[in-house]
Amino acid sequence: MLKPLGDRVVIELVESEEKTASGIVLPDSAKEKPQEGKVVAVGTGRVTENGERVALEVADGDTIIFSKYAGTEVKFEGKEYLILRESDILAIIG
Amino acid sequence: MLKPLGDRVVIELVESEEKTASGIVLPDSAKEKPQEGKVVAVGTGRVTENGERVALEVADGDTIIFSKYAGTEVKFEGKEYLILRESDILAIIG
Amino acid sequence: MLKPLGDRVVIELVESEEKTASGIVLPDSAKEKPQEGKVVAVGTGRVTENGERVALEVADGDTIIFSKYAGTEVKFEGKEYLILRESDILAIIG
Amino acid sequence: MLKPLGDRVVIELVESEEKTASGIVLPDSAKEKPQEGKVVAVGTGRVTENGERVALEVADGDTIIFSKYAGTEVKFEGKEYLILRESDILAIIG
Amino acid sequence: MLKPLGDRVVIELVESEEKTASGIVLPDSAKEKPQEGKVVAVGTGRVTENGERVALEVADGDTIIFSKYAGTEVKFEGKEYLILRESDILAIIG
Amino acid sequence: MLKPLGDRVVIELVESEEKTASGIVLPDSAKEKPQEGKVVAVGTGRVTENGERVALEVADGDTIIFSKYAGTEVKFEGKEYLILRESDILAIIG
Amino acid sequence: MLKPLGDRVVIELVESEEKTASGIVLPDSAKEKPQEGKVVAVGTGRVTENGERVALEVADGDTIIFSKYAGTEVKFEGKEYLILRESDILAIIG
Repeated sequence: MLKPLGDRVVIELVESEEKTASGIVLPDSAKEKPQEGKVVAVGTGRVTENGERVALEVADGDTIIFSKYAGTEVKFEGKEYLILRESDILAIIG
Repeated sequence: MLKPLGDRVVIELVESEEKTASGIVLPDSAKEKPQEGKVVAVGTGRVTENGERVALEVADGDTIIFSKYAGTEVKFEGKEYLILRESDILAIIG
Repeated sequence: MLKPLGDRVVIELVESEEKTASGIVLPDSAKEKPQEGKVVAVGTGRVTENGERVALEVADGDTIIFSKYAGTEVKFEGKEYLILRESDILAIIG
Repeated sequence: MLKPLGDRVVIELVESEEKTASGIVLPDSAKEKPQEGKVVAVGTGRVTENGERVALEVADGDTIIFSKYAGTEVKFEGKEYLILRESDILAIIG
Repeated sequence: MLKPLGDRVVIELVESEEKTASGIVLPDSAKEKPQEGKVVAVGTGRVTENGERVALEVADGDTIIFSKYAGTEVKFEGKEYLILRESDILAIIG
Repeated sequence: MLKPLGDRVVIELVESEEKTASGIVLPDSAKEKPQEGKVVAVGTGRVTENGERVALEVADGDTIIFSKYAGTEVKFEGKEYLILRESDILAIIG
Repeated sequence: MLKPLGDRVVIELVESEEKTASGIVLPDSAKEKPQEGKVVAVGTGRVTENGERVALEVADGDTIIFSKYAGTEVKFEGKEYLILRESDILAIIG
C-alpha cells in the first residue's frame, strides 16, 4: 500500500481506448497524456502556518480531472500510479 | 457533474457571433479568445494560513469577465468548459 | 453593471485632449497611455491569511492616479473600462 | 491634493544646485538622480495578514533619503512629485 | 549517529540489484538514481509562523518513495546516506 | 542625524590601513570592500504579519561584521555611511 | 568573540588531512570544500510572523554536517570561521 504524505494523493490513471478518425487504435506514445484519474489513497493534508492540518477535499474512489503533466509517476507492485498534490487536481467528477 | 476544488470555478464560455466590418462571419481560429463566461459550478474556497475556508464571491449562474488565456480547458460529456481560479475572474456582470 | 472581485476596482479613463507644442491634436496612437482615472466600482476587498476582508481605501467617484500599463482593458456596453487591483493605484486626487 | 494609498508616500524632490569642479552649473540631464526628498503626504499604512494597519514611520514635513530610481514620477498641478513605498525610504534626516 | 535538523530525514538507499535484459549486472554509474529508501533518523519538524513545531509524518524504519535527485548525499562512518526534507518524500510504503 | 527606518541600521565603515607584503599602502580603489562597521543608529524594527514590531538585536556602538556589497552608501554632512538591513549583519564582535 | 545574529551559527571547519591514493598530502587548493564543522557560537534564533523567537536546535560544541558552499567565510583574530544560517545545517553528529 502507498500512503501519500501531506496534501498528496495517489491516483490510478483512467485511460480510454483511443481511436483515430479512421478507426486505428493508437499505440501508447501517440496518445495525449491522460487527464482523468481515480483516487486510491489520500494524505493527511498540509499544515497551515497556524499549525492546523487541512483535510483533503478528495477521497478514495473519487474520479478526478487533473492538470496535464502534473505529479510523479511511480511503479508499485507492478502497477503504475501517479502521485499528485491536491492543488494539481482541478475537479471531482461526481 | 464537475465539482471544482478549492477556489476553482467551472464556467461555460459565452461566445458572441463575431463579424468583421465587412460582415463576414469569422471562423473559430480567427477570433480572439473569449473573455466572458457563465459560472456553472464553484469550489468550497481556499483555506487561509489561519485554517479558515474563504467562500467564493461568485455563484452558479453568474456571468463573469475573466483574464484571457487563464484556466484549463476541459471536455466533459461532450461539452467544453474552462476551470479557472477565482483570482482569474475580474468582475461579475450583474 | 460591472462588479469587480476582491481588491479590484473598475475605472473610467480620464483623458485630456493633448496637443503638441505646435498645437496639433495628436491622434490616439501617438499619445501616452493615461495615468488618471475615475473609480466607477470597487470590490469587497482581499481576504488576509487571518480570514479578514480588508475594505478598499478608494470609493466610487474618486479620481485616482495609477501605474501606467497596469490593469486589464474591458469593453462593456460599448464603453471602455480598466480593471485594476487597488495595489496598482498610487494616490487619490482629492 | 494627492492622498497616497497604503504604505505609499508623496515626496517633493530636494535638489541642490550642482556645480562641477570647474564651477559650471550642470544642466538637468547631466546630474545624478536625487536621493533626498521632503514628505508632503503619507498613506494610512499597509495591512498585515493579521488584519492590522501599520501606521507609517515618516510624517509630513520629514526630510528623507530614499533609494535611487525608486518610485513613480507624477506631475500634479504643474509640480513634480515622486510616489514611493515607505520600504524605499532608507532614513529620516532629523 | 546522524541527528537531522528541522523537517529533515536521514535515509538509507534501498537499491535492488539491477540486470539488463541480457542478464548483465550494471555497474553503479549506469543505473538510475534510486527512488526508494529506508528512514533511519527524523528531525524534530519545522516551526510554523505561529511558532508551533510540526512533527514529521514519517518515522524510523519506514520505507519511503522520494523524488529523484532530491536531498544531499552524506558519507558517515563509511556508509552512504541521503538527507532529505520531508517535503521531498512522496509516500510511505506500508 | 540619520534615523533609519524599520529594520535598517546606519553604520560607519571600519577600515584598517592596508599594506601589501612589500609595505606599500594601497590606494582606496585597490582594496577590498570593508566587512566591518560600527553601528551609529538603529531603526525601530520590522513589523511582523501579526502586527508586532521586532526590536533590533544590534545597538548603537556595536562593532559588526556584514555581508560584502550589502547596503546603500550615503554621504551625510561630509561623512560616508552605509545603511544596511539587520538581515545583512552576520555577527556582532563583542 | 563573534556573536551571530538571528538564526545564524558560527562554526570552525573540521578538516581531516587528506591524502591521495599514492599517499601525497594535497595542498589546500586541491581539496574539496569541507562539509563538517564544530559550532562555536549560536544566535538567538529567527522571529516568526507571530512575533515568537525560535531557539536554535544546535548548541555550542556540536559537530555538524552542512551544505557545501553555504555560509560566509570570516577571518577573526587570525582564525577562519564560517557563519551559516541554521537552515544550511543538515544534521548534528552525536
